[in-house]
Amino acid sequence: MAEPGDQTSIRSRGRPNRRQAAGAIEAATIIAGVERRIPTYDLLSEVSLQTIEDAAELILEEIGIEFREDHESLDLWRGAGADVVGELVRFPKGLLRSILKSAPSMFVQHARNPARSLKIGGSHVVFAPAYGSPFVRDLDGGRRYGTLADFENFVKLAYSIPWLHHSGGTVCEPVDIPVNKRHLDMVAAHLRYSDKPFMGSVTSAERAEDSIEMTSIVFGRDFIDQNCVILGNINANSPLVFDATMTGALKVYARANQGTVIVPFILGGAMGPVTTPGAIAQSLAETMAGCALTQLVRPGAPTIFGNFLSSTDLRTGSPTFGTPEPALGSLVVGQLARRLNLPIRCSGAFTSSKVADAQALNESAVSMLAAVQCGANFILHSAGWLEGGLTMGYEKLILDADFCSALHTYVTGLSIDPNQMALDAFREVGPGKHFFGCAHTIANYRTAFWESEISDNNSFEQWRDAGEQDALTRANARWKKLLAEYKKPPLDPAVDEALAEFCAQKKSERADQWY
Amino acid sequence: MAEPGDQTSIRSRGRPNRRQAAGAIEAATIIAGVERRIPTYDLLSEVSLQTIEDAAELILEEIGIEFREDHESLDLWRGAGADVVGELVRFPKGLLRSILKSAPSMFVQHARNPARSLKIGGSHVVFAPAYGSPFVRDLDGGRRYGTLADFENFVKLAYSIPWLHHSGGTVCEPVDIPVNKRHLDMVAAHLRYSDKPFMGSVTSAERAEDSIEMTSIVFGRDFIDQNCVILGNINANSPLVFDATMTGALKVYARANQGTVIVPFILGGAMGPVTTPGAIAQSLAETMAGCALTQLVRPGAPTIFGNFLSSTDLRTGSPTFGTPEPALGSLVVGQLARRLNLPIRCSGAFTSSKVADAQALNESAVSMLAAVQCGANFILHSAGWLEGGLTMGYEKLILDADFCSALHTYVTGLSIDPNQMALDAFREVGPGKHFFGCAHTIANYRTAFWESEISDNNSFEQWRDAGEQDALTRANARWKKLLAEYKKPPLDPAVDEALAEFCAQKKSERADQWY
Repeated sequence: MAEPGDQTSIRSRGRPNRRQAAGAIEAATIIAGVERRIPTYDLLSEVSLQTIEDAAELILEEIGIEFREDHESLDLWRGAGADVVGELVRFPKGLLRSILKSAPSMFVQHARNPARSLKIGGSHVVFAPAYGSPFVRDLDGGRRYGTLADFENFVKLAYSIPWLHHSGGTVCEPVDIPVNKRHLDMVAAHLRYSDKPFMGSVTSAERAEDSIEMTSIVFGRDFIDQNCVILGNINANSPLVFDATMTGALKVYARANQGTVIVPFILGGAMGPVTTPGAIAQSLAETMAGCALTQLVRPGAPTIFGNFLSSTDLRTGSPTFGTPEPALGSLVVGQLARRLNLPIRCSGAFTSSKVADAQALNESAVSMLAAVQCGANFILHSAGWLEGGLTMGYEKLILDADFCSALHTYVTGLSIDPNQMALDAFREVGPGKHFFGCAHTIANYRTAFWESEISDNNSFEQWRDAGEQDALTRANARWKKLLAEYKKPPLDPAVDEALAEFCAQKKSERADQWY
Repeated sequence: MAEPGDQTSIRSRGRPNRRQAAGAIEAATIIAGVERRIPTYDLLSEVSLQTIEDAAELILEEIGIEFREDHESLDLWRGAGADVVGELVRFPKGLLRSILKSAPSMFVQHARNPARSLKIGGSHVVFAPAYGSPFVRDLDGGRRYGTLADFENFVKLAYSIPWLHHSGGTVCEPVDIPVNKRHLDMVAAHLRYSDKPFMGSVTSAERAEDSIEMTSIVFGRDFIDQNCVILGNINANSPLVFDATMTGALKVYARANQGTVIVPFILGGAMGPVTTPGAIAQSLAETMAGCALTQLVRPGAPTIFGNFLSSTDLRTGSPTFGTPEPALGSLVVGQLARRLNLPIRCSGAFTSSKVADAQALNESAVSMLAAVQCGANFILHSAGWLEGGLTMGYEKLILDADFCSALHTYVTGLSIDPNQMALDAFREVGPGKHFFGCAHTIANYRTAFWESEISDNNSFEQWRDAGEQDALTRANARWKKLLAEYKKPPLDPAVDEALAEFCAQKKSERADQWY
C-alpha cells in the first residue's frame, strides 16, 4: 500500500512561483489544481436559463432517453419513478433534479502522491490532457497510429508539466496492444510513470473493473471504497441514447464510489439540432440523466456534469472546433451546471486543424478561454488535441500546456491592494521616467508577469540569428528535452510488481481481440 | 463633393449573411460595424473600481502630468482650474470627470460611402487593421521595410474584407516616401482605394491639418465642421507626459470637431509599474487628461477612451503581448471607461511573434477576446499585427480578419426563442437518429454556424491530398486572390483630381525630410 510521504512536495495554490517552473521544469514542482478567483462569464439571464431548463425537462418528459440493452438501468429508472416503455425512459418533470441532490458539489480525486490530489468542484480548475485519439503526430515523423510507447511518452510529458494537473486517460490509443488488453497497460502506465490522478477504461464493464482493481493494489481496497481515486469518462450516444457499454462502465465506477464524467457528444446538425440553444437543452437533458443514474446506483458517488458541444461545416458535414457557437454554449452550460450544484467538465483545446499551426492555436484559445470563463472544474482535452480529436500532437501538447500555464495567471485575476496599486512607484518615478530600476519594480518583478516557456519575445534580429524558429519548431525541441530529463516518480517496488502480476494474469486469461 | 448614392449597398447589422461573404468576398458586402448583444465580462467589483479611480485621482492631483512645450495646452488647463507649475499640471480631484461630461458617449464616423459610416460607442463594435509598423512581411518575401505599394495593398485588402469595418490609419509606414510627405499619400490612398472610414496623420499639427483638409475635398467643409469624418490616434508619452507633437495634433483634430483616440502606451515595468492594477490607474489618469483636453479645445468634440497595456519579459526587457495580465487589464479598462460614459478603444490582435504561427494566433485570440468582452467600441490593430507592432503581416491580416469574422457571430450571442430551442426537431428526430435532413435543419442550416474563410475542416486525407497546407500557406493564397479580385470603389473623377492636386501642391512647397 503506498502512502507516500517520502517525496518533496511543494503545494502551490493560486498563483504559482513561475520562476521556479519557467527555467527547468522539475517534476517536483507540484501544482494541485488552480483556484479561479475571477468571476464566471455569465451569458444568459435567469429567464433564458429557465427557458432552456424547461426545454430540457420537456425533452425528458415527452421524448425521453433510450437506455439500450441494459435491464438493470431500466429497473433502476422504473424504481425511481420514471415511465419506462421498452428501452425508452421518460422522466416526470423535476425527477432528475431531485435525484441529483445526493451528488456532491465537490470531491477530491486522490493521487498516489497525496500532494497531487485534486479538488474537483467549486472554484477549483483542473487541466487534463486530451483523450481518445487513435493517431499521434510529431514534427519529425508526421501522423501515425499511436503505440504504447507514445502513450507512455504522453503520460511522462503530462507528469513533467506542472500546468497539467491530471494524467488524463486514453492519452492516445496504443493500437499495438490488443483492444481487450490495452486498458491494463494504460492504467499501469498512469500508475507507474506518473503520480498524478488519472482516468480508467470505460470500453466495457470488465475493463472498468480491471481499472479499479489496479487502483486497489496501489491505494488499498478500504481506501478506494471511501475515496475517489479514478475517473471514468462516460459518453451519451447523442441524441438521447445511452448504450449498454457506457451504462455498464458507469455502473462499475459509481458502484465503486469512483468518479464519472457524463458527456453528451453533440455536433450540431448531426447528433443535435443546428441551433445552439436547442443543443444546450439536449445536452442538459442527457447529462442530467447520466449523472442521475450514478446516484441511483450509489447515492453520493462523485459525478461531473460534462458537455461536448461543437458545430459542423454544413457544406461538407465535417465537424468544426473552436468556433464561436460552442464557446457561447460553454458559457451557458457553466451557468446551468452551477444551478444543479455539480462539478463541471468543459471542452478544452479543440481544433480541426491537422497541425499545430495558426488555426489550431486560435481555435484552441477560443475553446479553452470559454472553458475557463464558464467556471469549468475539470477541463479534459486541455492539451494535445488535433484534427477533431483523431490525433494527439506532441508539439500541440507543449503549446497548449503553455497556454494552461497562462491560464493559471488569468484565473487568479487581479489583486486590488496597495502594493498592486503601486502609488509609491509613481511617487518615486514621476513623469517621463522609466520604471525598470525603481524600488517597486525590484520588489515585485519576480512574480510580476506570467512567463511563457515557449513563446519567442526576442527582437527580430535575435530570432533571425537563432534560426527563425516558429512556435512549432520550438515546441518540438521542448518535448524532446522534457522526455530526456524525465525522472520516474518513486513507486514501492512491491506495488510495481503486484501491478505487473495483475496485468500478466489478466492478459493470460484472455485471447487477443484486435477490434 | 461626393454624396455617393450610386453604389449597391447591403447594410447588414448584427449577424451578417455569412453565405454571401464566405464564397467569393465582394466589396459590395457592407457590414457597418457589428452590435454586441452579449454582456460585457465585468472583472472587478464596484469597490475595486472605486479604488482604481481613487488611485488615478491621486496620481492626477499629487504627481500630475507634464504637457511639454505647449503653452496653449498649459493655458487651457490653467483656465480650467488645474494647478500648473512650469510644464507640470496637477488636477484637483474630480476636475477631469467634470470636463469630460461634454464628450459624446457615442458618435458617427462618416465614410464617403454613407452605407459604411460607423457608430462608435454604446454596444457598437468596429474592427480596424493594425497601425504604425515600419516593416511588412509576407510568406514569399519575408520581412522588409514597408512601401507606399504595401500601404495601398493593405488599404485594398481592408476594403475587400467585410469583417474589417474601418480602413485604419498608418496600416504600414511607406518608408519610400519622405517623412513629411507620406501622410498625403496615405490619406489619398484611404480616400481613393477604399470608401470605409479611416484615420489621418498625427505626426505634426501641419500633417494633421493636411489630413483634415483632404477630407474637406471629399466631404465638403460645412459637412466636416458638423460631422466626424476622420480620427487621429494620440499617444500619451507614458508615464504621465504628453509632448507637443501629440497635443499639437490633438488640438487640430478636436478644433475641427474630428475624432481623437487617446492612448497611453504602457509596457508594465518600463512606462508603468510592473503591477497591472497600478498600470490601469495610470492609464486611466493619462486617458482622462487627454480626452479632457479635447473638450477644453472644443466641447462636444468626439473622443475615444483608449488604452494599450502590455507586459514585459523581465528577463530580457522585451515587451510581451497577448499575455494574461493585459487581457485582465482590458476587462477592467472597459468597466472604467463605461463609468465615464465614453467610447472605448482596446487592444487588438497583439503578438510578439515574428511570424503568423501558433504563438501569434494564440496571443492574438487572447487579446482580441478581451477587447470584445470588455465592451470595446473601436478595436485598432484587429488584423495584421506581428512582432510587437514592428511588422504588418499579409498572412497575419487574413488570419486575424477571419477571427474578426468569428467575433461577429460571438458578439451577437444566442437567441433564446422557440426556433432556436428546436423542440420540433427533437420531436421529428427522436432518440438515436441524426439531424442532418430534418425540417428544422433544412430551415436553419444557411445561417446556423459561423463559417471560416481560411480554416481547414476537411478530413486528414482530403487535407493531405491537397498538399498538407497549413493556415499560413492558405492565408498567403487568400490575400493574393483578394488583391487580384480587388475593384476600386467609385470616386468622382473631379474629387480624385482635386485630391491629387492638393497632394502635388503640398509636396512642391516642402523639401524632402527623411527622418
